[in-house]
Amino acid sequence: MKPGFRRIHSSRNGSMMTQHIRTQVGILGAGPAGLLLAHLLHKAGIDSVVIDTKSREEIEGTVKAGIVESPAAEVLSQSGVSDRIYSEGMKHDGIEFHFDGTAHRFDFQKHTGKSAYLYPQHEVLKDLIAARIRDGVTPLFSHTATAILDAESSQPRIVGTNAVGEGFEIAADIVVGADGSSSVARSFVNKDRNSSYFREYPFAWYGVLVKAPPSFDELIYSRSEDGFVLISTRDRDVQRMYFQCDPELDAASVSDEEIWRKLQAGIAGVELTRGPIFRKDVLRFRSFVAKELRNGHVFLMGDAAHTVPPTGAKGMNLAFSDVLWLNEALREYFRSGSESLMDAYPENAMKRIWKAQHFSYWMTTMLHVAPDASEFDKKRQLGELRSVTESAAANAYLSEGYVGWDYEADDWR
Amino acid sequence: MKPGFRRIHSSRNGSMMTQHIRTQVGILGAGPAGLLLAHLLHKAGIDSVVIDTKSREEIEGTVKAGIVESPAAEVLSQSGVSDRIYSEGMKHDGIEFHFDGTAHRFDFQKHTGKSAYLYPQHEVLKDLIAARIRDGVTPLFSHTATAILDAESSQPRIVGTNAVGEGFEIAADIVVGADGSSSVARSFVNKDRNSSYFREYPFAWYGVLVKAPPSFDELIYSRSEDGFVLISTRDRDVQRMYFQCDPELDAASVSDEEIWRKLQAGIAGVELTRGPIFRKDVLRFRSFVAKELRNGHVFLMGDAAHTVPPTGAKGMNLAFSDVLWLNEALREYFRSGSESLMDAYPENAMKRIWKAQHFSYWMTTMLHVAPDASEFDKKRQLGELRSVTESAAANAYLSEGYVGWDYEADDWR
Repeated sequence: MKPGFRRIHSSRNGSMMTQHIRTQVGILGAGPAGLLLAHLLHKAGIDSVVIDTKSREEIEGTVKAGIVESPAAEVLSQSGVSDRIYSEGMKHDGIEFHFDGTAHRFDFQKHTGKSAYLYPQHEVLKDLIAARIRDGVTPLFSHTATAILDAESSQPRIVGTNAVGEGFEIAADIVVGADGSSSVARSFVNKDRNSSYFREYPFAWYGVLVKAPPSFDELIYSRSEDGFVLISTRDRDVQRMYFQCDPELDAASVSDEEIWRKLQAGIAGVELTRGPIFRKDVLRFRSFVAKELRNGHVFLMGDAAHTVPPTGAKGMNLAFSDVLWLNEALREYFRSGSESLMDAYPENAMKRIWKAQHFSYWMTTMLHVAPDASEFDKKRQLGELRSVTESAAANAYLSEGYVGWDYEADDWR
Repeated sequence: MKPGFRRIHSSRNGSMMTQHIRTQVGILGAGPAGLLLAHLLHKAGIDSVVIDTKSREEIEGTVKAGIVESPAAEVLSQSGVSDRIYSEGMKHDGIEFHFDGTAHRFDFQKHTGKSAYLYPQHEVLKDLIAARIRDGVTPLFSHTATAILDAESSQPRIVGTNAVGEGFEIAADIVVGADGSSSVARSFVNKDRNSSYFREYPFAWYGVLVKAPPSFDELIYSRSEDGFVLISTRDRDVQRMYFQCDPELDAASVSDEEIWRKLQAGIAGVELTRGPIFRKDVLRFRSFVAKELRNGHVFLMGDAAHTVPPTGAKGMNLAFSDVLWLNEALREYFRSGSESLMDAYPENAMKRIWKAQHFSYWMTTMLHVAPDASEFDKKRQLGELRSVTESAAANAYLSEGYVGWDYEADDWR
């Protein structure tokens, strides 16, 4: 199929209108992964159609957290999506660990020469959607996929309905499920729902949004007898902070005074700047990896393929690794018809997925106190925190993981 | 009390002969910790009496494993115990990790400029006993302590019986429990038996001694689906190898063929050199730390105070840290009467104890497969092994821990 090739026509079956779209790559999900893939494919002259259940307003208006790794920022900037991350994001050259009454800084610049960027994910989405519109290929918002047909053939189809109840059918050479943790695509790649790697954690995060200036200019990760605390920031006026809680806790049941007490516990030498708390929520999390990332011409990437605990902020950054591998594979396929990189995609992607799963697990278990932790576990954990913070080599190891390992797939510029 | 002061006299109570000994420091246990402390105290002119339940022949004749860290080798050599570790020990400049069909070498010299030494613990004991004899203060072998009296006073006493059933009583200013994992002293410092930090592991090591030349010139730590394997060496003719097993396994029930199959599993690109297997045993292990290291003038150190899983070979090396801290504290006490370093001993010693506990736990959990490990756990573990082996910084971090962190207490030369 020639680059840029796209056909659209409509059909009627009784009162049901159906729009038929023919493209090279049909992408479920206008999240960071799906939109970045569409952008990179477009640069190689490959046509794609991105659909999403949500409206553009919903997607751009849902306030989200966001630590962008150095290599992810590079991809966004150098592939021509946007430089806003550098001009408007907050550059973070380190993070702090607070434990046992002491504060320790991991110096990213010293150990890696790189930084992480605090740049909310909804801003990344605005940049990616603007790029699609700039390229004349606006995603189809408010389009809900219900199934992927003929997944194992070389002509899979996405079927579903739009906001006004009309049907649509996207016929493509390749279908990509980038539709997040509640993925519809996943079950067409992993038929068996039990076909996943999975870990639950006996704790969640209690998150608040506070109208106040930042308490500190870098992120603070804290571990105390009360458990984990993360002092983060949204911007100059709004702060985001979390403390470890029971996953069953009712967010509304916790008083502001109790919230401030929990947040302040374990923070060494920094008095939190208080302000009105205007959102309270309990965020559960888990580790999950789908066993299969490919079924014939249907692929999974991003949260549809894996989720990580939020400690370590790997989610979107890991999704970009999948995108770059799949972008390379699809470029090869449409250039030459060869499926060799498509065949290699699951193994290539899984390497970083499991490293990132480990990093997220490590950050999580090192900084949270499990409800059933023994006294040995707690002392051992403090021994680990001391080992990691006292060693320059361990500082470098953790910093490398935090600012982000270089992506291996590089055919995206 | 003046340096070198020692009094001995005997008394009779009916038919019971009792030997009375007056010294400055009474030490239970002629293991590496007790003997090294006696040696260092002697250099400072402080008299001590070391007793041990076992005979000299038993102590020197019990074949034991031994990886001596670089700083521990320095202490033995530079304090004048012996240089045999350098002339007769096998210098190891690295170890290998084998997993997932690949081999990875940790280069100690490159990352730390140091080495570890394979030098069996019974050879260290021969050196330390020879040093005591050279100094004219032969340990009292075959002396079994039954109690420590007046522990909380400034004149504690060790009481017990010798090999021919005569009683003994050692009156001292300080009593030190260095009597290993079945310590008698421990209960006189930690009255409550539950007063410890403790972790059990759901696996043990199946160890064999094999009459054969070495299969490889460095240690190989391997992790496969079958679990952990360690390929170690005793000398040019005898090899020591282990594989992970059920703690309840009967050592005699495993055939030689099965042993070789288990040992070879997961070893990448190295064919094990076979030979007659002349010892088979199941070695259980655990993590343990006594809560109290001091009660009045009675102190615990070494295995009496803590045990670690053998993965990472920290046991004796960690004991030496306790010895150096206590040596400093007792030198201060006998020099000036000040108890300030004695007071600080538990906190000082605990810092390294918990770092070493973590290192041993880390090596153990990274390389063993728990019987109840989920598929997620196993994949995450491989992600960890890849993260650690691929990062130069992590190579350095692990190497630092393996060759041994510098001891902090330095008043021993």
